[in-house]
Amino acid sequence: MAGGTRELTVDLGERSYPIYIGSGLIARTGEIFSERGFPVKSPILLVTDSSVVDLYAAKVEEALATAGYAVTTVVVPSGETSKSLEMLDELVGAALEAGLDRKSTIIALGGGVVGDLAGFVAASYMRGVRFVQIPTTILAHDSSVGGKVAVNHRLAKNIIGAFHQPEFVLYDLDTLASLPLREVRAGLSEVIKHGLIWNEEFVAWCDANAEGLLALEPEALGYALYEGCKVKSIVVSRDERENDLRAILNLGHTIGHALEAVAGYGELLHGEAIAIGMVGSARLAARFGYSAHIAAETERIFRKFGLPVRIPASCETDAIMSAMLHDKKFSEGQMVFVVPTAIGSVEIRNDVPSSWVREIVDGLREGN
Amino acid sequence: MAGGTRELTVDLGERSYPIYIGSGLIARTGEIFSERGFPVKSPILLVTDSSVVDLYAAKVEEALATAGYAVTTVVVPSGETSKSLEMLDELVGAALEAGLDRKSTIIALGGGVVGDLAGFVAASYMRGVRFVQIPTTILAHDSSVGGKVAVNHRLAKNIIGAFHQPEFVLYDLDTLASLPLREVRAGLSEVIKHGLIWNEEFVAWCDANAEGLLALEPEALGYALYEGCKVKSIVVSRDERENDLRAILNLGHTIGHALEAVAGYGELLHGEAIAIGMVGSARLAARFGYSAHIAAETERIFRKFGLPVRIPASCETDAIMSAMLHDKKFSEGQMVFVVPTAIGSVEIRNDVPSSWVREIVDGLREGN
Ligand SMILES: NC(=O)c1ccc[n+]([C@@H]2O[C@H](COP(=O)([O-])OP(=O)(O)OC[C@H]3O[C@@H](n4cnc5c(N)ncnc54)[C@H](O)[C@@H]3O)[C@@H](O)[C@H]2O)c1
Ligand SMILES: NC(=O)c1ccc[n+]([C@@H]2O[C@H](COP(=O)([O-])OP(=O)(O)OC[C@H]3O[C@@H](n4cnc5c(N)ncnc54)[C@H](O)[C@@H]3O)[C@@H](O)[C@H]2O)c1
Ligand SMILES: [Zn+2]
Ligand SMILES: [Zn+2]
Repeated sequence: MAGGTRELTVDLGERSYPIYIGSGLIARTGEIFSERGFPVKSPILLVTDSSVVDLYAAKVEEALATAGYAVTTVVVPSGETSKSLEMLDELVGAALEAGLDRKSTIIALGGGVVGDLAGFVAASYMRGVRFVQIPTTILAHDSSVGGKVAVNHRLAKNIIGAFHQPEFVLYDLDTLASLPLREVRAGLSEVIKHGLIWNEEFVAWCDANAEGLLALEPEALGYALYEGCKVKSIVVSRDERENDLRAILNLGHTIGHALEAVAGYGELLHGEAIAIGMVGSARLAARFGYSAHIAAETERIFRKFGLPVRIPASCETDAIMSAMLHDKKFSEGQMVFVVPTAIGSVEIRNDVPSSWVREIVDGLREGN
Repeated sequence: MAGGTRELTVDLGERSYPIYIGSGLIARTGEIFSERGFPVKSPILLVTDSSVVDLYAAKVEEALATAGYAVTTVVVPSGETSKSLEMLDELVGAALEAGLDRKSTIIALGGGVVGDLAGFVAASYMRGVRFVQIPTTILAHDSSVGGKVAVNHRLAKNIIGAFHQPEFVLYDLDTLASLPLREVRAGLSEVIKHGLIWNEEFVAWCDANAEGLLALEPEALGYALYEGCKVKSIVVSRDERENDLRAILNLGHTIGHALEAVAGYGELLHGEAIAIGMVGSARLAARFGYSAHIAAETERIFRKFGLPVRIPASCETDAIMSAMLHDKKFSEGQMVFVVPTAIGSVEIRNDVPSSWVREIVDGLREGN
């Protein structure tokens, strides 16, 4: 890859794949397809959303066409509601009409919504075809690595899905320039999460570089995404199918997912919801006897990045608690939480009394 | 397992599993769950259809309850139309409401429809939970072995699916007594297919034992299902994900699937459609210079079992040809067929001119 491009390998044996992070990468999509031996005879489906299509789809199409590939683009409405079985049905129809065969590739061009949806289409179309991620949000540094793909059900988020690793991830930093600031903040929430679970130094670096990151300064951004992807890929390499270690990536997600569900999908951004959830987990840490400093620091950093750290008044505690009981992270009916033991490390507790969780949820109201 | 029970292992390394074939096995479901260490704390979802529920569901529930398991039964309408994303959505809702967690099991009690549908739910619920097959049709000796699970799309059959191997298959011969004769014949079509692709002797045995098989004589039936499952499991063991060898299992299926789609799902039974398809493939063999005896024998045996060997007048050739072009077995736009080279062996041809296929389809009309 060209100078300035960072490269990282997700180490999964036969299913290993590279992540390229840098500027001007989309223009090279076709080249990479050729180099990596994607068959020219098999049509490609490019899945993107209504906000991204006009910004970047033509560039991807052009790069692929130049290299001799036939591409059909399908556009889904922007937003979480597109992660649905109805949209799966539509995309499979589009794939059939475009003539995709078993050697075809499905590309996700967009944020985590497009990645999760197109990834599940790739996992299940003909029982699995090639998949490529071209993430265009900061949050998608997380969703594009690790192979978890899914759609939502009326009763639960991400409950219908698969593990389906991409062939490669192409992270073109230039696409991030058009991201709304609120999305930038929400994406950085997940970057900071990767520091909080694994790497204290990186948390300190994020803290010191908050301004540059929020301004999308390329060098800072490239480094942060590289480090974030690195933590994710190390964890995933050691536990692809979430038997144990991988669960630490869910820091803040138990409360976060419940908040997203109760607020109504799309009201609270994913990164916002988990920022609040991470503050909750840090407070849980104090209940388990770990330093109260963890919660204070966690809260301070998220505030610095302009992220919410309190539960909106519209979300009632009962509703949040009951949403959590549908969460798949409760193995065999017990409450399981990822709890920080310090900044940069966590443990998984499966002995969390629901009364503690309720107290913490209540305590995370505005004014507390 | 008890005397009279035949046992077979599908050899897939870590994912290996046993198939039990015999009488009175359903009563032992709970026992087997306990022996194999299925966790009692995780609820079980039993998926069955509207024809099977009253016949056998209570027996399975009782056997599990006696062993301490909590089971929730969900019933889908009998028939191919239940293999849909809508039904996936419903079953996932039922699984959530029943509290299924990551260690839970989904059981398919029924024919291939229930097996394929419940199997895809098991593959995608929480990105994969345990799956057990309790087949109740003869055809399901095929569908319950090998881990292919799927639902249909408006435009194509089995196009949305996964590879998800069961933990075990429990084949209780007693359940077959209630099968309508038309279903018996259709199921035997797939049994004979396993002979045609792999084992000439077994074809001769089927031929000689047609009467006993159609009368569901237990010893003959147990042997035939054992041999059918054995061929399937050998092939699947050598090529789990259909990279090459496994494709031979599709003998008769290219034309067969097209006929099912054109006649309207459910009009022609799967086993009937592929019987016609196998006669077509045998005629294709003659075009490639193999003995015309193959087609004559194939046709004679299927007639002996009371199976159709001609395309219904309602299915137009153009419609059949165009349905085949949507078939996933056409790799990179070429026509691929499994073609017999003798009774008991086949080869995969990817050089089949579509004009030959059209001629054979035309020739397979009543009166020819
Ligand atoms: N699979 C995983 O491991 C994983 C991990 C984390 C999150 N997720 C999922 O990711 C989703 C959230 O991802 P997200 O935050 O990227 O959401 P998103 O895909 O909805 O993108 C956020 C918004 O930004 C717009 N957008 C995207 N790229 C843009 C660009 N370059 N310029 C301008 N606008 C742009 C989108 O249209 C959307 O409105 C959730 O569904 C979550 O469940 C998955
Ligand atoms: N996954 C695979 O590898 C694979 C292989 C072959 C076929 N299939 C699929 O299998 C399906 C066909 O399977 P099938 O023929 O078993 O269809 P089916 O499940 O629809 O069963 C046939 C009919 O018999 C009824 N029935 C089932 N068991 C009965 C019993 N014991 N007594 C009385 N009635 C009973 C059913 O309600 C149904 O009406 C198709 O959808 C096909 O695509 C899958
Ligand atoms: Zn997340
Ligand atoms: Zn079949």
